Amino acid sequence: MSDTQRILDAISSPSDLKVLDDEQMRVLAREIREQIINTTAHSGGHVASSLGAVEIILAVHSIIDAPTDKFIFDVGHQAYAHKLVTGRLNKFESLRSFGGISGFPKPSESPYDVHPSGHASDSLSIAVGLAKARQLNGTHEKIVTLIGDASLSGGMAFEALNYIGQAQLPMVIILNDNEMSISRGVGALTKHLGYLRASNVYRGTRDKMQGIMETTGLGARMVEFGRNAKDSFKQMIIPQSMIFEQLGILCTPPVDGHNIALLREVLSKVINTDGPVLVHCVTKKGAGYAPAEMEPERFHGIGAFDPKTGKSLNGAHVSTFTEAFGKALVEEAASNPDIVAITAAMAGGTGLKDFAREFPNRFIDVGISEEHAIGMAAGLAKGGKRPVVAIYSPFIQRGIDQMIVDNALDKANVVFAIDRAGLVGEDGPTHHGMFDIAFTRMIPNMKVLAPSDEAELVNALHTALQIDGPVAIRYPRGAGMGVALPKEPQTLPMGPGSSRILFKTKGLRASEAADIEILVFGSMTSQALCAAAVLEKKKYRVRVIDMRWIKPLDTKAIKRALKAKVLITLENGSVCGGVGEEVLKEISALKNRATAKKPLNVPLVATLGLPDAFIAQGKQNELLASLGLDGDGIAKTALKLLRKAAKNN
Amino acid sequence: MSDTQRILDAISSPSDLKVLDDEQMRVLAREIREQIINTTAHSGGHVASSLGAVEIILAVHSIIDAPTDKFIFDVGHQAYAHKLVTGRLNKFESLRSFGGISGFPKPSESPYDVHPSGHASDSLSIAVGLAKARQLNGTHEKIVTLIGDASLSGGMAFEALNYIGQAQLPMVIILNDNEMSISRGVGALTKHLGYLRASNVYRGTRDKMQGIMETTGLGARMVEFGRNAKDSFKQMIIPQSMIFEQLGILCTPPVDGHNIALLREVLSKVINTDGPVLVHCVTKKGAGYAPAEMEPERFHGIGAFDPKTGKSLNGAHVSTFTEAFGKALVEEAASNPDIVAITAAMAGGTGLKDFAREFPNRFIDVGISEEHAIGMAAGLAKGGKRPVVAIYSPFIQRGIDQMIVDNALDKANVVFAIDRAGLVGEDGPTHHGMFDIAFTRMIPNMKVLAPSDEAELVNALHTALQIDGPVAIRYPRGAGMGVALPKEPQTLPMGPGSSRILFKTKGLRASEAADIEILVFGSMTSQALCAAAVLEKKKYRVRVIDMRWIKPLDTKAIKRALKAKVLITLENGSVCGGVGEEVLKEISALKNRATAKKPLNVPLVATLGLPDAFIAQGKQNELLASLGLDGDGIAKTALKLLRKAAKNN
Repeated sequence: MSDTQRILDAISSPSDLKVLDDEQMRVLAREIREQIINTTAHSGGHVASSLGAVEIILAVHSIIDAPTDKFIFDVGHQAYAHKLVTGRLNKFESLRSFGGISGFPKPSESPYDVHPSGHASDSLSIAVGLAKARQLNGTHEKIVTLIGDASLSGGMAFEALNYIGQAQLPMVIILNDNEMSISRGVGALTKHLGYLRASNVYRGTRDKMQGIMETTGLGARMVEFGRNAKDSFKQMIIPQSMIFEQLGILCTPPVDGHNIALLREVLSKVINTDGPVLVHCVTKKGAGYAPAEMEPERFHGIGAFDPKTGKSLNGAHVSTFTEAFGKALVEEAASNPDIVAITAAMAGGTGLKDFAREFPNRFIDVGISEEHAIGMAAGLAKGGKRPVVAIYSPFIQRGIDQMIVDNALDKANVVFAIDRAGLVGEDGPTHHGMFDIAFTRMIPNMKVLAPSDEAELVNALHTALQIDGPVAIRYPRGAGMGVALPKEPQTLPMGPGSSRILFKTKGLRASEAADIEILVFGSMTSQALCAAAVLEKKKYRVRVIDMRWIKPLDTKAIKRALKAKVLITLENGSVCGGVGEEVLKEISALKNRATAKKPLNVPLVATLGLPDAFIAQGKQNELLASLGLDGDGIAKTALKLLRKAAKNN
Repeated sequence: MSDTQRILDAISSPSDLKVLDDEQMRVLAREIREQIINTTAHSGGHVASSLGAVEIILAVHSIIDAPTDKFIFDVGHQAYAHKLVTGRLNKFESLRSFGGISGFPKPSESPYDVHPSGHASDSLSIAVGLAKARQLNGTHEKIVTLIGDASLSGGMAFEALNYIGQAQLPMVIILNDNEMSISRGVGALTKHLGYLRASNVYRGTRDKMQGIMETTGLGARMVEFGRNAKDSFKQMIIPQSMIFEQLGILCTPPVDGHNIALLREVLSKVINTDGPVLVHCVTKKGAGYAPAEMEPERFHGIGAFDPKTGKSLNGAHVSTFTEAFGKALVEEAASNPDIVAITAAMAGGTGLKDFAREFPNRFIDVGISEEHAIGMAAGLAKGGKRPVVAIYSPFIQRGIDQMIVDNALDKANVVFAIDRAGLVGEDGPTHHGMFDIAFTRMIPNMKVLAPSDEAELVNALHTALQIDGPVAIRYPRGAGMGVALPKEPQTLPMGPGSSRILFKTKGLRASEAADIEILVFGSMTSQALCAAAVLEKKKYRVRVIDMRWIKPLDTKAIKRALKAKVLITLENGSVCGGVGEEVLKEISALKNRATAKKPLNVPLVATLGLPDAFIAQGKQNELLASLGLDGDGIAKTALKLLRKAAKNN
């Protein structure tokens, strides 16, 4: 099929979907799948989830009138089809790229995007907030939200369901249940139907569905749910959705989420509900693309791949911080039986797959439940274990209270392995790890390490496991520096003298002041070294320090750096609440202790890091350059201050 | 009964309970109630919850062997009986006082206290963490946790239940269900029993219970659960605990939680469970003390009262920040129909009772569900409403991610009314509001107000409601400054020039530098003014500035203050991540912009606030004095720096 003949090309807004019949919709779904595969083959992205939700999205948009009606996504990584039918086809090739369209719904990008989805389990709260506003406004827009089964394990979703059932505001919750096997048999369905509460709205739908079943033989395509599902929450929801019913939320029986005719039929009934209704759709992750169907986890978030074979197009494999962490943890655990690893549904992403295989009894995946993960770690520590909780920086934001009250207050021996700390890249503002420096260092009793390369990460983990009380280790997404891992992990020093000199201008003696000192906290050493090279060319003497620790600070290194003309602190996190501020506080304290006999030179100081703003998506290097945080940008700032310092003297 | 004859006086540890028969236990329960009432009559405290849990605590401690066996409390404000039977009777009079014993379980206080309970919904995670550690350790201690029904609405508890059901580690969860009415009839019980899953452990208990019912006529004392309960979550749990059962957690039928014989009977059976078991206890808040039974909410957390009448002993009523907020919000809402108020189970504590009565349709209580409260606010804002979310500082820590991703990223027009910001007093470290300055100011697009008195709070609210994007207003627990409330609320200026001069030494002209400038952020103006009085006596010229805003800063006020010899920033929050650091960053930036022609004087600076440590309980004034943050302490710091500044020049 040539592109010019595509139905997709004629869809400029969702209203164009309304005139399509079921067969045209099926063709359109195929075209959308091709488009998603072809684009993500070079852009990368959330392929499996987006392929699984194509029919649901088309069905919803053919029933409702967006943007007046509201269609909210949970997490939002299944929304590519939504983007394609809401006027963004011609920009779709720029998906996830710097200056391009976001990989997630983004209100500033389109009026059809209700909420900047990106963190799991929040869509129900947003939706019921909109429903309450509608009630107060006296308007009548429809509200539909799409949430995956995994997101339901997040406590926030449960809190919202609890409220939704009580408030009884009309809304449609589409549960995209994509992890159950689809097989023959209507036994479970029949049993399920028996539980359903009588309701005019509902009965209409159910009768219709039964009619559909009889006339189309759909029964044979309905799903039977495995009795042996390991996840107790799924057992709870399925086969009896009594929980929802008990909560006051009407439920449909499971619906084939790839049958667009059935979806339209069901949705057109429930859309006029006078209370909350849950449409239970069963889908297949990666549907319609064999490689993604077979390896949905690899295709969850994937880089460029060959669309024909599904093979990843990564060049030579570069070892990542995450891999170094995973490997080091396995090695530590081999000699320390107290180590327990905890993940919140991210075993692969956080590098814990090997650990899970080697030590299955010491590996815990709690699902999308960061609060519980962190609370449970405190319990394990009280029981004498050494839990290591590996969570991405943007998601551990869900458990800050638990870090404070459950762990730090009682000095629990817990290691927080904070992956994706700093700019994450193509996933954009909801996924950048901007805030963990600010929120970990504010916690009393907490120690915070920021290893600058993968060998340092191995040593940081080894060190953290020997410390009494909670320790956070933050490290970035992506490739390490290519350094060799230590054969034996080292215990890093802590406190005054703990930093290491990464670079200094030749001939500069230890006691001697450089013109400029760059104190790096964590993963931006290569940018600092590039800046140093630029500055040396301009004949300035430079010293670059890897500070290693965010808390406690190496006050000795700071004191030494004060002899310079210009001091720069550099961190891959927000400057607002960042460690640069702590350095300024230390300088202020040193100044307060100085005397006339021992006066203190205070150089010009720049605290560089991520600005106090949400940062869009793009490659990490593109983003850093745009923020003046690449080598050239840092050097430019330094040069400006050096010139200023020269003038002032 | 004279004190010397009390059974209680002979209880030095829980093992002494094991020899008591049921009748002696009933006497002991009475004695404990008397002790709790007599002590809290002058200390204040969580009376109603503690009275309601006496029998449960006695029963547990007479069955298990603590501290080897673990007894974990959720929130912990029901633990007074636990304190009394674990060797703290002789210190009980010091409850909640400075240097005394904590009002909550505190591991550093007693080996019987497992976890520093204080925030709702975390006990299940702690307990299952201990259970997993036990499995790995190969030991056999019992694990019992006590959680109230209100705490179950917190998402963290649900996340934990989801894991507990899956992991099937043995533990006993006692659900203290204290909000349902107790009446005759076993219909609900019988129906309930029908749902229960067969199990050897369980059946034994059930059979036994049926026997108990038959032989003691207990059936008539069992509870019938209201069908019309408004809270959908309670409907879910009760009358069918199918949810727990579906989650893989066995449940007992409802047990009278004040029948100590029955409790011992049931607990002695379930304690040897080979999986998770929930014991559903029905209790009465304030049980055994008529005033507390009749007004459980007033006796939830109460100050001193007359033990005979239950009447509060507060002197002349002093108006609080919370009251000023509640009143102002009602007035704003009268003229602005878009205002919606949200609380997370704290309508009284946050001053929203009047609002709830005046505008029932615009008042939302989501229960203990801070994450959902904040997410739903974003949804309301998208629907054109102006939600005001009132949550205590220590509890809004549960929703930081939602403040960032759901609100700030999309610039939602939401006001966060952060009550209990700063030292809270007698409730101690879990309840101090230490961190909100750090975690609100780190959020892009967020604006943060810190009104210094109740009139300023009224103006701050008025101002916040006109601002586009999220605004946090932080204000402390307790009495205001006694100032008159504005007849018409004023819109406060923002940015450069927004602060106000609270005090300046006579004759000091606007353009003239004081010797010392004190920049106060929020509620510590009286301390600053006391310090100013001390400093004036020493002939220093002083200016005290009420900065009003934490974000954005009044950079003009900072610039002016730099002319002083000493600059002090003062905040009722942790200095680690505090706004004092932002002031230092602003000074550093000003210095970088200064020129040889226009040099910048930088005075000695002290950033005063709460130290980077958890702070125990005590009266606010006692705590401030102990931290050097009362007027004398601040003056002392200032004088030290003034002398230093004089010497250096």
